[in-house]
Amino acid sequence: MDIKKDIAEEVVKDRIHKLQESMRAANVDGFLLTQNIDLYYYTGSMQNGYAFIPSHGEPVFFVKRSLERARLESGVAVKELGAFRMFGESLAKQFPLVFTGRADRKAVIAADLDVMPALTYLKLSELLQAAGAGSLIDGSAIIRRQRMIKSPFEISRFEAAAAVVDESLREALNYLKPGVTELEWMAHVEFELRKRGHIGLMRMRGYNQEIATGMFIAGSAAAVPTYFDGPAGGLGLGATSPQSVSRRAIERNEPILMDIGCCIDGYVIDQTRTAVIGELPEKLSHAYAVSEAIIREAEQGMVEGSICSNLYGRALEQAGEAGLSAHFMGYGADQARFLGHGIGLEIDEWPVLAKGFDVPLEAGMVIAVEPKFTFPCEGVVGIENSYLITDGRPRALTFTREGLIKLP
Amino acid sequence: MDIKKDIAEEVVKDRIHKLQESMRAANVDGFLLTQNIDLYYYTGSMQNGYAFIPSHGEPVFFVKRSLERARLESGVAVKELGAFRMFGESLAKQFPLVFTGRADRKAVIAADLDVMPALTYLKLSELLQAAGAGSLIDGSAIIRRQRMIKSPFEISRFEAAAAVVDESLREALNYLKPGVTELEWMAHVEFELRKRGHIGLMRMRGYNQEIATGMFIAGSAAAVPTYFDGPAGGLGLGATSPQSVSRRAIERNEPILMDIGCCIDGYVIDQTRTAVIGELPEKLSHAYAVSEAIIREAEQGMVEGSICSNLYGRALEQAGEAGLSAHFMGYGADQARFLGHGIGLEIDEWPVLAKGFDVPLEAGMVIAVEPKFTFPCEGVVGIENSYLITDGRPRALTFTREGLIKLP
Repeated sequence: MDIKKDIAEEVVKDRIHKLQESMRAANVDGFLLTQNIDLYYYTGSMQNGYAFIPSHGEPVFFVKRSLERARLESGVAVKELGAFRMFGESLAKQFPLVFTGRADRKAVIAADLDVMPALTYLKLSELLQAAGAGSLIDGSAIIRRQRMIKSPFEISRFEAAAAVVDESLREALNYLKPGVTELEWMAHVEFELRKRGHIGLMRMRGYNQEIATGMFIAGSAAAVPTYFDGPAGGLGLGATSPQSVSRRAIERNEPILMDIGCCIDGYVIDQTRTAVIGELPEKLSHAYAVSEAIIREAEQGMVEGSICSNLYGRALEQAGEAGLSAHFMGYGADQARFLGHGIGLEIDEWPVLAKGFDVPLEAGMVIAVEPKFTFPCEGVVGIENSYLITDGRPRALTFTREGLIKLP
Repeated sequence: MDIKKDIAEEVVKDRIHKLQESMRAANVDGFLLTQNIDLYYYTGSMQNGYAFIPSHGEPVFFVKRSLERARLESGVAVKELGAFRMFGESLAKQFPLVFTGRADRKAVIAADLDVMPALTYLKLSELLQAAGAGSLIDGSAIIRRQRMIKSPFEISRFEAAAAVVDESLREALNYLKPGVTELEWMAHVEFELRKRGHIGLMRMRGYNQEIATGMFIAGSAAAVPTYFDGPAGGLGLGATSPQSVSRRAIERNEPILMDIGCCIDGYVIDQTRTAVIGELPEKLSHAYAVSEAIIREAEQGMVEGSICSNLYGRALEQAGEAGLSAHFMGYGADQARFLGHGIGLEIDEWPVLAKGFDVPLEAGMVIAVEPKFTFPCEGVVGIENSYLITDGRPRALTFTREGLIKLP
């Protein structure tokens, strides 16, 4: 089989060592990984199974299917999972120091409880407790914190994805004409993205959150609020797809929001540009200019040590100074409360530039910054770039020409 | 806002009544729905929130976002969710008979624990127990059983999706030539599907299961096993997309498996055809003929009252009679253990034509039947149709011409 390791074994080992350091600092004896993306990040494979990482020593990826493929992809030892009901015993046997090695207390096992289904949690808890562990605790914050800092390989994947978005957008702009529906135009964009290697999925960690390849929304349809936790919604294709593209035809002189992402080798990029066929009303071009001013200011502020919540706070101030507070990141009750979000294997990674997210920026973080303004019945304008935080100025990973895109 | 109800209010009411009957039969006092698709099925809206259905009386959809949109979409009463920590109290106040109305026992509350994340479960459990409930129990089987039986409206959506797949496949066949990569050809298929209203997502209920729009896989790349719980895998685009299309170019005289789905108005269809540019080796054309013989036999057997596991058993027998047991539904350790699966708002609905699934077929069920044969290093051949179970013969919803598609 023509299957290679995506991630070098040394990289997997390094990630495991860092996880083990965090586990020891948190008095966690073992970590049980169950979700696709978590498995991939720490083993190099997302075959079906569970990976167990002890706080000291070598991890094991217990695989149900495909064992053969996991052996080719994984940078850690792979064993057959076997019967699920025996999994607690297998763990206790494989990791005696974790499960039965101490007399003073039960083993503290963390897991990705933010994504693991409750039924899986209940079944695994029973097995692990029978094997000598205490209640499973949530370790997702440990994972999400570690994943904030990207490696050079990961950054190269964002760069590849940014190039795909730029080329695809340029190709698809040839089809952006009055009368074309949002759906039709998005089909062109997605065709271009897919040909260039988009995996066809955009992964989100949040429960119930989903997105195809972005939001391509124009005029009044763009300003319709949705359940999606983002600054722009969209009329969508009915109650089963209540966001993003609709069958509404694009008209002249209305804002066209092109929030486009794609996933190359697992890594998602996020970029927004605003276009118009003709001219935008003065109020909307002004708001667009404010969104560019906010992103320029964010670029100044996104240096190591800056506090995420302060960057959001400064953007709120700028929106207020421009008289646009009520329109910033959605309108009224449906405003999203952030300026930007981490991206990576998932679109909703850490850090978040939001109130309450009081952590300092560090070199290696990758953040999509997306100041946008919503005007009910008129549309949404704004801009979004994805940035790498460095030890100096942030480096933009997205590079499509900025400014309002005016089509004749 | 141009938002209409997808589901008529009477349909929502009828679904709620049926759910309440099942709840009373299972001694469940209240049902808490949390997942997008579950919310949509019982309220008509998948805005962000929780729906609570008492075993008697009117349900309430508690919405966080977008409240405005939920009010337009929902067929049940909508209230603002408010602060999450107060949700238990809101429920107890809104549903006093459920939570505090009886002295003899605590309220039995069911929820969709097969999909709800463990952390959400732990937080909700705490709130509900403080409000007078016992431990949350899993009610997913009740939902999945009810959803097996489709309404005329739902069936019309499958029909629309089947037409989109047929048209898209026909258009895309024009691009199927030696040297085209699996990825490139799939991009054409998806372009055609999307233009015709595919929502851009295919929803699966199973943890960690995901799929773009199907499996388009040829020759040796098709036979690579994957974590995906299906009969065909695919080399994919690397360890972060370890299934379906790869960058391998299609060659003459190898089997090309075209397993294509799409989602129209929330409903997914599933159809597979096998093609070849040139001629298939005799062994593979024979296996293809056996897959057609199996689906013909399944059509005879899929009548009301037939037991799902027996239909799978009969297919296993036929594969054995043809000397193809080791190749049926995957190869060796990676064989999938089913013949077909329910489809609907999710691709992995009930019933499943599999061992242990000993329920009788009923009119209104919709099932994708997909006998396939995998030959390592050579490829996968097979056929798949989606059927509606009726009070007579099953009615095929997919209608693309059968038989091996031979291209010059």
